[in-house]
Amino acid sequence: MSFRHRHLLGIEPLHPTEITTILDLADRYADLNRSALKRANALEGLTQINMFFEASTRTQASFEIAGKRLGADVMNMAMQASSIKKGETLIDTAMTLNAMHPDLLVVRHPSSGAVNLLADKVNCAVLNAGDGRHEHPTQALLDALTIRREKGRLHRLTIAICGDIAHSRVARSNLILLGKMENRVRLVGPPTLMPSQIDQFGVEVFDDMRAGLEGADVVMMLRLQRERMDGGFIPSEREYYHRFGLDAEKLSYAKDDAIVMHPGPMNRGVEIDGTLADDINRSVIQEQVEMGVAVRMAAMDLLARNLRAARTDKGVMA
Amino acid sequence: MSFRHRHLLGIEPLHPTEITTILDLADRYADLNRSALKRANALEGLTQINMFFEASTRTQASFEIAGKRLGADVMNMAMQASSIKKGETLIDTAMTLNAMHPDLLVVRHPSSGAVNLLADKVNCAVLNAGDGRHEHPTQALLDALTIRREKGRLHRLTIAICGDIAHSRVARSNLILLGKMENRVRLVGPPTLMPSQIDQFGVEVFDDMRAGLEGADVVMMLRLQRERMDGGFIPSEREYYHRFGLDAEKLSYAKDDAIVMHPGPMNRGVEIDGTLADDINRSVIQEQVEMGVAVRMAAMDLLARNLRAARTDKGVMA
Amino acid sequence: MSFRHRHLLGIEPLHPTEITTILDLADRYADLNRSALKRANALEGLTQINMFFEASTRTQASFEIAGKRLGADVMNMAMQASSIKKGETLIDTAMTLNAMHPDLLVVRHPSSGAVNLLADKVNCAVLNAGDGRHEHPTQALLDALTIRREKGRLHRLTIAICGDIAHSRVARSNLILLGKMENRVRLVGPPTLMPSQIDQFGVEVFDDMRAGLEGADVVMMLRLQRERMDGGFIPSEREYYHRFGLDAEKLSYAKDDAIVMHPGPMNRGVEIDGTLADDINRSVIQEQVEMGVAVRMAAMDLLARNLRAARTDKGVMA
Repeated sequence: MSFRHRHLLGIEPLHPTEITTILDLADRYADLNRSALKRANALEGLTQINMFFEASTRTQASFEIAGKRLGADVMNMAMQASSIKKGETLIDTAMTLNAMHPDLLVVRHPSSGAVNLLADKVNCAVLNAGDGRHEHPTQALLDALTIRREKGRLHRLTIAICGDIAHSRVARSNLILLGKMENRVRLVGPPTLMPSQIDQFGVEVFDDMRAGLEGADVVMMLRLQRERMDGGFIPSEREYYHRFGLDAEKLSYAKDDAIVMHPGPMNRGVEIDGTLADDINRSVIQEQVEMGVAVRMAAMDLLARNLRAARTDKGVMA
Repeated sequence: MSFRHRHLLGIEPLHPTEITTILDLADRYADLNRSALKRANALEGLTQINMFFEASTRTQASFEIAGKRLGADVMNMAMQASSIKKGETLIDTAMTLNAMHPDLLVVRHPSSGAVNLLADKVNCAVLNAGDGRHEHPTQALLDALTIRREKGRLHRLTIAICGDIAHSRVARSNLILLGKMENRVRLVGPPTLMPSQIDQFGVEVFDDMRAGLEGADVVMMLRLQRERMDGGFIPSEREYYHRFGLDAEKLSYAKDDAIVMHPGPMNRGVEIDGTLADDINRSVIQEQVEMGVAVRMAAMDLLARNLRAARTDKGVMA
Repeated sequence: MSFRHRHLLGIEPLHPTEITTILDLADRYADLNRSALKRANALEGLTQINMFFEASTRTQASFEIAGKRLGADVMNMAMQASSIKKGETLIDTAMTLNAMHPDLLVVRHPSSGAVNLLADKVNCAVLNAGDGRHEHPTQALLDALTIRREKGRLHRLTIAICGDIAHSRVARSNLILLGKMENRVRLVGPPTLMPSQIDQFGVEVFDDMRAGLEGADVVMMLRLQRERMDGGFIPSEREYYHRFGLDAEKLSYAKDDAIVMHPGPMNRGVEIDGTLADDINRSVIQEQVEMGVAVRMAAMDLLARNLRAARTDKGVMA
């Protein structure tokens, strides 16, 4: 087994063999999740705390189910309200929870880098469940697992990531992962929704869906994140859908067996046609959600193994 | 054992022998709940998700306790806030959770029929925890169990359901159940709070408590649901209590050993006198709550058995 | 073993040997919490309900972790919203939950005495997690455990409790406990933040930090609770920090090995200097949080033992 990290803060620090290790284990957990008894004991006697500073029903539910199926004691902290109201800082809150000896801290935060900051301060393993526009590693891993299961491989594929790239940590983690695994990544969207520094990732950029999707194996749509657009150009939904919304016609530019992905929650009729999203011959959106639980189980299992190994080396952690 | 449904969406589809099957098993769980070790393993390795689109502390707590005592991994989703805010539809939310392979989905929703709609879309067993003015089957079952334990039988009883019938799914499920079990059901309340179509249920209707309660074995009061009265006649609480609020005097019209029921939460001094509600010689309101946990354990146990049987027939569900 | 209570409602009713019993057991749970497998079965098959009528992320998390590590089925009820909105009384809510046969009810309430009132009505064990300005017994016990571990004893120490005494149930429970264990307790703060009746506790009162801290073994700072100040004198934060905020200079009046405590959440720069709060040579604030989980495990374990013994005596409780 090859996975040597204490935290899972992003895709950036991962070696391709580590990505493969996570996906292989996740494939086995995907089988467990489809079986009659969804129970393993990888996290038995461990405490998992979900600290969500941004609400997210689906991601929190996915981590909660993952932890419970592995036997962890799982706790959800809704961080928006109580402690912040009393003026406590992020670090004070984290240190307080850390003193209760959790083993896994799953953190979502609106500020890029907040999760890394927090990971430096605590004794347990930290999983980034999305921080600002920075990273969302388990989303990229679940997308990778879905692609690998559908396409039979995770390299030398042409993958078009389309839409609101600028505001998307999902896009960022995905293009890092897909690049590491030697795929050809294209970004497709209006120039106003492209990040300012994209040259570093060695991707191709298109502002036209026809050219961007031509010959693609995978078409990955993104949610139009109006809630993160602070001023600047905001397209009308109708205009946006006309130019960049995925429908059957635009999909026809891609390969005949191209799959359609979306991280959810979807804006039907904005970035994707509702009928296409529900077409089980093309859309793998439900499988992405399913693989999300499996990938999170695998990631938490691997982090817990490293945690136990570190404790054995050093004796019990203070 | 006779219980052949995949979902529990209402009392309507149940055969009287199925109702008896649930109540018999619930009686056994009621014993477990009074014992020192409240632990069974009927739902071990299964995932239960409570999706409450209407807040309800007591009903959600009852389902949560029921699931945990049976060994399920239980998750609560507060659906009002997060996902709906992002504009996701009911069906998208349900499909997302469905992809995480839950086994039991407990759903409360303000729209009649929403739970049936959802049940058509998912692979797991769905329990209706109240949908609009339609059904609330576990409430009717817990009322039935309470009556059967108090009266020694669940047939040929005279049962007066009193108050705000029009807005009450509790009343609707109860009169269906009590009718199936061959009881005489009376509806008592002001004409403005009677449903428009009541002939179909073969009940007697009264707008006077004295006549309605005369000779009754069971007096079932309902909560005055001002929150559901959209316009139209709203009685003053004082006037309402005077004419339809249950007190010792009005109860004296019923049989000497008549029991008093209320689904809670109560408006003391509106539909029921507080002293009478607390009189353990007449009121079985606390027992109703107690039987609620037992009935929900029984219903989830039976649904899980059918789920397992279906999976064995077809192999693992995709 | 010496601990003979059915509830833990305050420090007031506890005998010094009972306090020692709790702390001794908590010491053992503190070891468990630092180990690799944080799992005991003292509450297996029991149901714990956390009823927080005031939000408190940290205290609720501490009780939840404590219960889960002991194997209880733990449920959180956010009591602010739903049931109170429907006009249900505290007692009705409590009786409803009581009918579901919980074993441990952990209650926080804004009104002094509300928790005692509730304990009279229910069959299970009640733990006070803070009621108004009355008591917060597990906070005093965790402070005592922290002091005993740091100082090697819990008697004949000089302990200065500083700041907003008037609004603090933490201060009240602490001075009762520390008095029972034969320590010298000083209260330090502006006269406007002193309770009106303090003579009964046999403490010394100071309005000057220099005099109050001189020779102290323990300096216990309190949170300035603006949210509880209903009118009257409210000091400016700047003025308050200048006169009563703990910094290195004021701490120098205490003994050289004096420890610094705070129940959290802290107002950095109001009642305590942030750098001092983080100084692991002086501040034991993180250890207080850690001991909180251990003390709550011990208290719930002891209450559950008494609950089981009472049930064996009387047969199963109705």
